[in-house]
Amino acid sequence: MNTFGTLFRITTFGESHGAGIGVIIDGCPAGVAVETGQIQAALDRRRPGQSDLTTPRNEADRMQLQSGVFEGISTGTPISLFIPNADQRSDDYSHVAHAYRPSHADYTYDAKYGRRDYRGGGRSSARETAARVAAGAVAAALLAHFGVRVAAYVSAVGEIEVPLGYEKLDLSLIDSNPVRCPHPATAALMEARIRAAQAAHDTVGGIVTGVAFGVPPGLGEPVFDKLPAVLGHALLSINAVKGFEFGSGFAGTQLPGSEHNDEFYTDEIGRVRTRSNHSGGSQGGISNGADVYFRVAFKPVATILQPQATINDQGESITLAGRGRHDPCVLPRAVPIVEAMTQLVLADLLLRARGNRV
Amino acid sequence: MNTFGTLFRITTFGESHGAGIGVIIDGCPAGVAVETGQIQAALDRRRPGQSDLTTPRNEADRMQLQSGVFEGISTGTPISLFIPNADQRSDDYSHVAHAYRPSHADYTYDAKYGRRDYRGGGRSSARETAARVAAGAVAAALLAHFGVRVAAYVSAVGEIEVPLGYEKLDLSLIDSNPVRCPHPATAALMEARIRAAQAAHDTVGGIVTGVAFGVPPGLGEPVFDKLPAVLGHALLSINAVKGFEFGSGFAGTQLPGSEHNDEFYTDEIGRVRTRSNHSGGSQGGISNGADVYFRVAFKPVATILQPQATINDQGESITLAGRGRHDPCVLPRAVPIVEAMTQLVLADLLLRARGNRV
Amino acid sequence: MNTFGTLFRITTFGESHGAGIGVIIDGCPAGVAVETGQIQAALDRRRPGQSDLTTPRNEADRMQLQSGVFEGISTGTPISLFIPNADQRSDDYSHVAHAYRPSHADYTYDAKYGRRDYRGGGRSSARETAARVAAGAVAAALLAHFGVRVAAYVSAVGEIEVPLGYEKLDLSLIDSNPVRCPHPATAALMEARIRAAQAAHDTVGGIVTGVAFGVPPGLGEPVFDKLPAVLGHALLSINAVKGFEFGSGFAGTQLPGSEHNDEFYTDEIGRVRTRSNHSGGSQGGISNGADVYFRVAFKPVATILQPQATINDQGESITLAGRGRHDPCVLPRAVPIVEAMTQLVLADLLLRARGNRV
Amino acid sequence: MNTFGTLFRITTFGESHGAGIGVIIDGCPAGVAVETGQIQAALDRRRPGQSDLTTPRNEADRMQLQSGVFEGISTGTPISLFIPNADQRSDDYSHVAHAYRPSHADYTYDAKYGRRDYRGGGRSSARETAARVAAGAVAAALLAHFGVRVAAYVSAVGEIEVPLGYEKLDLSLIDSNPVRCPHPATAALMEARIRAAQAAHDTVGGIVTGVAFGVPPGLGEPVFDKLPAVLGHALLSINAVKGFEFGSGFAGTQLPGSEHNDEFYTDEIGRVRTRSNHSGGSQGGISNGADVYFRVAFKPVATILQPQATINDQGESITLAGRGRHDPCVLPRAVPIVEAMTQLVLADLLLRARGNRV
Repeated sequence: MNTFGTLFRITTFGESHGAGIGVIIDGCPAGVAVETGQIQAALDRRRPGQSDLTTPRNEADRMQLQSGVFEGISTGTPISLFIPNADQRSDDYSHVAHAYRPSHADYTYDAKYGRRDYRGGGRSSARETAARVAAGAVAAALLAHFGVRVAAYVSAVGEIEVPLGYEKLDLSLIDSNPVRCPHPATAALMEARIRAAQAAHDTVGGIVTGVAFGVPPGLGEPVFDKLPAVLGHALLSINAVKGFEFGSGFAGTQLPGSEHNDEFYTDEIGRVRTRSNHSGGSQGGISNGADVYFRVAFKPVATILQPQATINDQGESITLAGRGRHDPCVLPRAVPIVEAMTQLVLADLLLRARGNRV
Repeated sequence: MNTFGTLFRITTFGESHGAGIGVIIDGCPAGVAVETGQIQAALDRRRPGQSDLTTPRNEADRMQLQSGVFEGISTGTPISLFIPNADQRSDDYSHVAHAYRPSHADYTYDAKYGRRDYRGGGRSSARETAARVAAGAVAAALLAHFGVRVAAYVSAVGEIEVPLGYEKLDLSLIDSNPVRCPHPATAALMEARIRAAQAAHDTVGGIVTGVAFGVPPGLGEPVFDKLPAVLGHALLSINAVKGFEFGSGFAGTQLPGSEHNDEFYTDEIGRVRTRSNHSGGSQGGISNGADVYFRVAFKPVATILQPQATINDQGESITLAGRGRHDPCVLPRAVPIVEAMTQLVLADLLLRARGNRV
Repeated sequence: MNTFGTLFRITTFGESHGAGIGVIIDGCPAGVAVETGQIQAALDRRRPGQSDLTTPRNEADRMQLQSGVFEGISTGTPISLFIPNADQRSDDYSHVAHAYRPSHADYTYDAKYGRRDYRGGGRSSARETAARVAAGAVAAALLAHFGVRVAAYVSAVGEIEVPLGYEKLDLSLIDSNPVRCPHPATAALMEARIRAAQAAHDTVGGIVTGVAFGVPPGLGEPVFDKLPAVLGHALLSINAVKGFEFGSGFAGTQLPGSEHNDEFYTDEIGRVRTRSNHSGGSQGGISNGADVYFRVAFKPVATILQPQATINDQGESITLAGRGRHDPCVLPRAVPIVEAMTQLVLADLLLRARGNRV
Repeated sequence: MNTFGTLFRITTFGESHGAGIGVIIDGCPAGVAVETGQIQAALDRRRPGQSDLTTPRNEADRMQLQSGVFEGISTGTPISLFIPNADQRSDDYSHVAHAYRPSHADYTYDAKYGRRDYRGGGRSSARETAARVAAGAVAAALLAHFGVRVAAYVSAVGEIEVPLGYEKLDLSLIDSNPVRCPHPATAALMEARIRAAQAAHDTVGGIVTGVAFGVPPGLGEPVFDKLPAVLGHALLSINAVKGFEFGSGFAGTQLPGSEHNDEFYTDEIGRVRTRSNHSGGSQGGISNGADVYFRVAFKPVATILQPQATINDQGESITLAGRGRHDPCVLPRAVPIVEAMTQLVLADLLLRARGNRV
């Protein structure tokens, strides 16, 4: 299933070393201004080679808009975005054609399909997420019509965590450093932490925090497509993600109900508000108008430049070491992916909510 | 959207105080032995009034099998399970007809639909999960054909946690105590913790750990319906759930890649295995044959027997206190719900995997 | 797949001789007045025993509204309608437990599922359409909010056809005779035709014409869910249907383009209209505001009170004759089914069209 | 909705005069030999300029395989096929930018979306069907693994009809003439009929007959996705189609049940067969192993080289005449489209049937 969404739906395709990767966006309403510059800008935040913290692979990721937009405006027909693979060096990967790299998808793809395109991870490559980022930029353009805005940032790298909640941070600083952490002091520590991993030929994981501002009350479809359920689905479908929590999350399990409950009040302009927001903007699976915030756990990158024991597709023991160009930490580049998946979810739920009343 | 699943699909319906609740299971293959006794047994583990740790409401939850089974065997047609509401006392709820209870779904249902059935929470009541549990029992019967078995237990109540991983516990002890924790010493502490909350007219949250044994390699559909993504969706759709993590989860973000990676080896009977299982049985979103394990965070129950400040549907400040019969801790009764959603996910992915090779 | 529709979705269940049949309507917007009397009235038009032209089986078809409606108004949650099977005489069917009746679904159900509930045709019984009719009445209530109205009538029985198009008939006469043909002179001939078939222990087929009035421009989702495609899907899913044509249909293939084309003009109140309506209200798969009309072919009922050669499930030749209570002609009772499926399609497309513009 | 299918799913995109058109095939099992030559051959049967009976536009329709196939074999990941638009002359269409051509989709697209890409009909152009044909060739490769084969041919042009049923024709002659009619004498008459329409600056419609051979018993999903219902949906979604009938179709409504019923027998090798096939290979919506055959009605092409009265998007009366290069009859080029949609339906139902038994 390479399709996500009910009304605002994306279908992605493509492998790391084929002709390219792409996405079809079906169900984008007519009338949305789709600017290729904005889509390209989103892609540029995800692409390799942005800083010396990321893989030096230089994928230009030049996006082609192929359909669904006429004179700069969406027409209601499918929007196709294609990103040709520029930097294909298949021979780099011949050594893994028959190897099962630890904690990669080589074995499971073989187990499922009986074969796989082993070049650069094929379909299981994180390169697939570029298609999501491109689509997310279109979703963001739709959301902008309704005053909804999404932001994400790196809140932890390994054991180094931002000491403040999102509401106490200046989110305009997210892109002020290569780590994409809006708390500059912590960002510096994170950067050092990533370099240390890199120096040790090792990798490190972390956490991305996401927030959606301006989400109107009423989004989320009980009982299975609750806002956090769909959001969790979206984020857990990103490569390397191991966990998702929203609002008070796992820590909230330790609060008593009397403290966890968010009391309602009416604000000065008559809006229903809550005094706290342990709910993370969702009650009963439906948005309540408060900020929707959540955290996403990313495991350390599986490709490490150290020898590891593993097996090949004949079941024989082999030793394997990563080579070439790899990220020591995926977190900085994960930020636009988290944003994109969140934008896609909200765009879809926004359209779905149009059917809620006669 | 009250439907979940692609091939093994359930649609639930019903409110807390209407005629009853139910579920239609569509896509169950013909040939599965469907025993009403097993379904009823699953429901009995979820129903209120099982022990003095749970609400004393006495809902018998007598399930009626209405279609899709002939002479004890599924026929391939939709299976309808209906549970009449026996214990309806609508007048209990008149005081909340116009109130927005903190951290309940009263306000968001009104915001979304413009109206709601306020009796007992209506559709947002946790009673809806009985339908899931009934359906899960049918999924379990299907999974049994393939040697797949699911177990869940309470691994934390408030700050009290089981000190061992699932693989070191005797899971046959899960139902040996009312908390459904297979570590008896911890279970005793949890029980005391729940009673303390109850005595304080307060509530407490916690964590359920789930495990699926015998999952064959190859389940999970890249790139959006990865095993953890669909599982996360399923579990995050349960009332009161705030977080989901699988395998190493959030803690895994602090491990170096060299430690987190699961090395492959071939076991004595030629199966591909991993020496560790930080992956939680899923690599690239596809099961690898190892145990699939995960944790689910439940917030403290929102209904507390203390006065709370809130507003009514006119936006006026009011004070509200829960009354009547409520659980101080949802965890023990959440165990069969977590199992059911896991069974539904695996049954669906198992059928979907039949399409993976020509 | 027992679910139909994308946003206004129904899931039906139940067999002819089980506990009952039913339908879950998911996605009905909140705020629709759902009157059980209207649903029951629709069911009464479909039920057996209405006149001596139909089977004398007396199925009361008393519908139970189980969820989704509070104080007479839909709440946005799933609406469950259940119709218990009152008149179950399983022993009537023992002679067909192992027989494959010609042109019935006995063999194909066995071929597909390896087993079947043979009592009264089980799931393949036309009784299943009662659930559709009940759901259609709810769809009609939704459509009424938007001024959309659907009508159907019998336009042919065997070789006897109404000599006029729908636009020249007084559709208020549809229910003025047991055939449900609004052209009284033809109705009399049809009635005689059905009685002749009955007397010959034979059956006869025919055609139902359907019309939707007041369909706003813009319904239908290119390129696969065009209005006629979804409508055709819906109508071809009814038991015994062998063909569907809309607008000029098969006859239109013989017109030159210059005659077939519908010229546009602007009417006195500024609406875009067409001078002819060979298009049947759909151009490019999208409604254009003109009447949507179509014809549906029903084969003669397969159960005949004559001996027929066939085989049993062991492949042995046997002779079989229908017994008991059967319709000589399904057409009069098919009228409300055609209406219901049309209403369901239009309700769904109406909701889907809400996503077409930002 | 630009997606069709449940397990074998296609999503098409692109407009007549944009960058190109394409299709993503999701759910094709791994292990299917996908030959670009076969896909191109299918496209060549649909492309313009094949003979002097069709539009002289010369669209080379060179297909690019972009993903999902590795070393000639499908990998289970999405297959992307892209066909760049080579022959774009946007200025040809400036005269229709604001005109509503009779019986085209100009008005309805504007009514639905508030805007449209008017160049060459944009998304409503029959060019979109090239994507379907390309996908159908992949479905055909899958079907070949199971011995299923699909054929279609022109059985009527205007009032000229092939006098024999498909089972009495030599279908190897389909491509022996430019009309794609396997009855040479009738083909000659049809060719003359098309030339007469062309000479009169008019157009003519007709009927395509389709047949699927080797369909195993058990395909089709009651109660809504019955084989004829899904097939009808597929075929009615093709541009210009006005009707669909299968088996005995509309004519079957005039047969008595005693004649219409298909008696079962067991053939010499023990297979269940029917002596006649009025059912068209489907009983109760499930294939019975007999040939699946059906007829599809195509209206005359709407673009005629004569002046017609119509309006513009301001509602003003105008006169319009088609210009340039258009087909006088769409039937010969419709044959591969009918085949493709049939192949797509059968491939999907074949995969879905894998879930029918435990």
